[in-house]
Amino acid sequence: MSADPAVPPTVDAAYLGPAGTFTELAVAALLPADTSSAAVLTVQDALDMVAEGEAHSAVVPFENSVEGSVSVTLDALIHGSPLVIVAEAHVAVRFVVVARHGTTLADVRRVGTHPHAAAQTRAWTAAHLPEAEVLPETSTARAAELVAAGDYDAAVAAPTAATRHGLQVLAENVADRPGAVTRFVRLTRPCPPPVATGADTTTLAAFLRHNHPGALLELLEQFTARGVDLTRLESRPTGEALGQYCFAIEADGHLSEPRMAEALTGLHRTCRQVRYLGSYPRADRAGHEVAAQAAEPAYRRARAWVESLTRGR
Amino acid sequence: MSADPAVPPTVDAAYLGPAGTFTELAVAALLPADTSSAAVLTVQDALDMVAEGEAHSAVVPFENSVEGSVSVTLDALIHGSPLVIVAEAHVAVRFVVVARHGTTLADVRRVGTHPHAAAQTRAWTAAHLPEAEVLPETSTARAAELVAAGDYDAAVAAPTAATRHGLQVLAENVADRPGAVTRFVRLTRPCPPPVATGADTTTLAAFLRHNHPGALLELLEQFTARGVDLTRLESRPTGEALGQYCFAIEADGHLSEPRMAEALTGLHRTCRQVRYLGSYPRADRAGHEVAAQAAEPAYRRARAWVESLTRGR
Amino acid sequence: MSADPAVPPTVDAAYLGPAGTFTELAVAALLPADTSSAAVLTVQDALDMVAEGEAHSAVVPFENSVEGSVSVTLDALIHGSPLVIVAEAHVAVRFVVVARHGTTLADVRRVGTHPHAAAQTRAWTAAHLPEAEVLPETSTARAAELVAAGDYDAAVAAPTAATRHGLQVLAENVADRPGAVTRFVRLTRPCPPPVATGADTTTLAAFLRHNHPGALLELLEQFTARGVDLTRLESRPTGEALGQYCFAIEADGHLSEPRMAEALTGLHRTCRQVRYLGSYPRADRAGHEVAAQAAEPAYRRARAWVESLTRGR
Amino acid sequence: MSADPAVPPTVDAAYLGPAGTFTELAVAALLPADTSSAAVLTVQDALDMVAEGEAHSAVVPFENSVEGSVSVTLDALIHGSPLVIVAEAHVAVRFVVVARHGTTLADVRRVGTHPHAAAQTRAWTAAHLPEAEVLPETSTARAAELVAAGDYDAAVAAPTAATRHGLQVLAENVADRPGAVTRFVRLTRPCPPPVATGADTTTLAAFLRHNHPGALLELLEQFTARGVDLTRLESRPTGEALGQYCFAIEADGHLSEPRMAEALTGLHRTCRQVRYLGSYPRADRAGHEVAAQAAEPAYRRARAWVESLTRGR
Repeated sequence: MSADPAVPPTVDAAYLGPAGTFTELAVAALLPADTSSAAVLTVQDALDMVAEGEAHSAVVPFENSVEGSVSVTLDALIHGSPLVIVAEAHVAVRFVVVARHGTTLADVRRVGTHPHAAAQTRAWTAAHLPEAEVLPETSTARAAELVAAGDYDAAVAAPTAATRHGLQVLAENVADRPGAVTRFVRLTRPCPPPVATGADTTTLAAFLRHNHPGALLELLEQFTARGVDLTRLESRPTGEALGQYCFAIEADGHLSEPRMAEALTGLHRTCRQVRYLGSYPRADRAGHEVAAQAAEPAYRRARAWVESLTRGR
Repeated sequence: MSADPAVPPTVDAAYLGPAGTFTELAVAALLPADTSSAAVLTVQDALDMVAEGEAHSAVVPFENSVEGSVSVTLDALIHGSPLVIVAEAHVAVRFVVVARHGTTLADVRRVGTHPHAAAQTRAWTAAHLPEAEVLPETSTARAAELVAAGDYDAAVAAPTAATRHGLQVLAENVADRPGAVTRFVRLTRPCPPPVATGADTTTLAAFLRHNHPGALLELLEQFTARGVDLTRLESRPTGEALGQYCFAIEADGHLSEPRMAEALTGLHRTCRQVRYLGSYPRADRAGHEVAAQAAEPAYRRARAWVESLTRGR
Repeated sequence: MSADPAVPPTVDAAYLGPAGTFTELAVAALLPADTSSAAVLTVQDALDMVAEGEAHSAVVPFENSVEGSVSVTLDALIHGSPLVIVAEAHVAVRFVVVARHGTTLADVRRVGTHPHAAAQTRAWTAAHLPEAEVLPETSTARAAELVAAGDYDAAVAAPTAATRHGLQVLAENVADRPGAVTRFVRLTRPCPPPVATGADTTTLAAFLRHNHPGALLELLEQFTARGVDLTRLESRPTGEALGQYCFAIEADGHLSEPRMAEALTGLHRTCRQVRYLGSYPRADRAGHEVAAQAAEPAYRRARAWVESLTRGR
Repeated sequence: MSADPAVPPTVDAAYLGPAGTFTELAVAALLPADTSSAAVLTVQDALDMVAEGEAHSAVVPFENSVEGSVSVTLDALIHGSPLVIVAEAHVAVRFVVVARHGTTLADVRRVGTHPHAAAQTRAWTAAHLPEAEVLPETSTARAAELVAAGDYDAAVAAPTAATRHGLQVLAENVADRPGAVTRFVRLTRPCPPPVATGADTTTLAAFLRHNHPGALLELLEQFTARGVDLTRLESRPTGEALGQYCFAIEADGHLSEPRMAEALTGLHRTCRQVRYLGSYPRADRAGHEVAAQAAEPAYRRARAWVESLTRGR
């Protein structure tokens, strides 16, 4: 089959660009070295490319250890075209201060960076660049580019920005709270989940049927009654009106485990709508200890017992 | 096949006698007219005959609208040989006052009856037989027999006692609280349950694994998470020590319904032990309204949905 | 003040007689040696004497380690005149076999006893008196009396029966399940509870407002949210109709502890009716370990904190 | 007392600037016309001015009907200097397209705006400005300023931007999802809450003691057991590590109501830490219907009942 010149080639991964931000490190962690990729302007653009078949997958930020959910990603998954998470990667957020060669910290008066980066390095800049003004840009990569162009004296940026723009690193590991991590996810169109590893997460969104008192408690009971632990729960606006929410939920376990399958069954019965967003291995490989009573053998034995009752033992 | 004279013939139903008590009415309600039956001295004797194959079934009292559970029956089912309930009948408890012919209420000085019957007719006797002394006997039928023998002037007994002992009815519908009902059950060795009717009860006993705080709440969640309503819950002693209990539970629904089957699965996983005591039609045929989300179609759709997820839709 | 000969003297304790049963041991455990007491025919009679001021208190059986609740006592407390439990005692149930002097076990053909005693000694009599017929009487004391009168060869009775009726003990510690204990309670008209000991029980009955699904779970939440553990829970008939229940509840803790007071407040708000039946020391003095978060200091600090918020800290 | 020229005057309100964004409308809604105010660069700057006494209050965005929580505000309240919400305002987000006088929609090729505004008007610009490129700026006000400077043909901005920069409105009510609303809050240093209105919200953050299974359920029980409805619940990172969360919670009701005070007491006892963030009137004045059993009279009666029990009635 010859390629149709009018159809753009399908890339392996679309990712939130520009090149030179932390997302690029996530792409490297989540996909083979020879992956074809395309940096796009917004998370929504990356997801659209997958939904429309222009990319096999998208790599986008999902959560940050300091700032929490990346709302734009979460909401696009909840409300947009159906996509599922198939993998995640944790990328340590270690900023560097970059400048043109020859610049010293003492020379820096104007610093460009993204507001999120500014927020995470605020105490550091107050201590080490007390004279400098920190100005907001739309990405750390853009700020680095503007340093190269001479618009700023320095930028707070990802380590990859230095090489990409021929800049010098004035300071490394710049962060007020060391150890910040961003969690990136790889998304595809709906597909069977990767095989269970014993250390998996399931992500979903649930819309309550009625917002009656105790409704959230009933939703949680669908998990606790099956011994499934939640790791994260977040009201997200449905977009209909202020005060109308659905719940973004992350739980320990995999769709192929009976406790998770049964909990999902319970949600489907009792909620207005449930959107399943994937079962996939945890990046930290931290096996969650499952109580014996919630593990597969207990389910198997219990079902065999109920089966025996219907036959009169 | 010729009968072995050494083997006693197997009766259709063993029941708590003596003949002439309310249990006989329950036998009539629960079994065909031509049933062979044997009146025995104690509930335990009736159950033993079933367990040992000397009777196909037993008919015994299980609960009374005034006095609650019949503990001896409940405990034998929980701790004894495995038996299951296959049917229930409600028998109205309407006492009569019987005496020898020629006796009038004004003549009555000594009244015999069972203490339970005495308790349920106490205000009546105080009002209508203020001069009489009420003396305890081991059954209302025995009291009637002793009236015939001349030991008592009258007895508070079941209506069948009059004909059986050739006595006269001095007063009918004798009860302090009208409308008392006793619930009798028919028990057999373990067998498949009778078909679901849409108005069924499931009876069971659950032994908690640990008696930690909130353990009972967790047990109840196994029911509520599946939309199963409990009708009765009762701590029963395990017999090990004072303060050690298991739970006798009755719930609306039938083993063949997915909500009940799944709830039983949950109990089996999370409890130390569960004894299933039968799924059978309610005597009052009062169909319990099942919420749409707990009904079979909701379970079927939910399971199909989870199935679709594993295939990638 | 001169005594009015028309008014019967008030006794210290009315108890379920006849003299010579286990209740007499409970009276000895619960009241001083010089207590005036009256043995009455029924539990209800004993309670009535207290309600009407003819006795300061009543001593009645409340629960048995083998047979569970004594329904007649429990129901009288739930539905009758308001009374409260002020003390409890555990009495070991150790039956003896008594006979006239000169009788040996080998001579025994007819044994009289109460059906409950018969049930608890069934295996023993089958093993040691295989030829004997066990016949029901209305109390073990009555059976012993009839042994003395020559109507029975022997009786299964309480140890006190031997001396009372001049009988000989043929066998001691007669029980199929050793270690059976009956819990007796002392009841008075409503009064402030005895002081908290750190090992107390609170007893009450709760009537649900609506029997909606999950109603029992909500009732239990009133306890668990305050860190109060239930020790016993039992559906009891309201007496209105079969299937109408209230809940008899026993919980660890004392009315004077904030967790219990707050839980009772919650029940009063959310139930149709609550009947408080007393806070009193446990007979076994088994101090229940209260989690720090449910103990009085945690309540005190939490209330001080909320108070500080209203003042703007 | 004469003013110290070295001490900057304290303003009534610090707000997230620049002037000309939606926050300015919130300031107008939340404070009197003659209020002195200061526009600052970041939410954190506004909160710092309050914490340090340089402003009496701060007005900052807290939640958006499309995008959910404003994380920077929420996290600063959870982790920063103690501040409380004393009022809220809802501001309709109605974008306009502004341009220099003489420009028509057909002329527009380069549009500047904030990425959030771009996200909310994406379908509109695709339909009405299909040829235009939308470029990100750090605020809609900055984009409008750059239109005036000639750097852009048009900006998607707040309505106030037109007058402020002498621009012309090419299109009004520009939004993909009409009816978007941003919720702003006014914050002060800790102070007694404004009086209850019957339509109030209480905001707080709770840190669980242990992240054991069912821990979140137990937290929610502290609310449901008192009849308090949650309106919003959100896992927020503690900042310690990925996967460590606290819960930001909003509930119907006011600190001065017993149900809320008791729920807060329960949280304080059972959580590692609770940060109270204020009780204040709802902007929509939507009175929440409180069940009779959760209202103040039910609490008063229940407490009087418990009190009566301790006195023996």
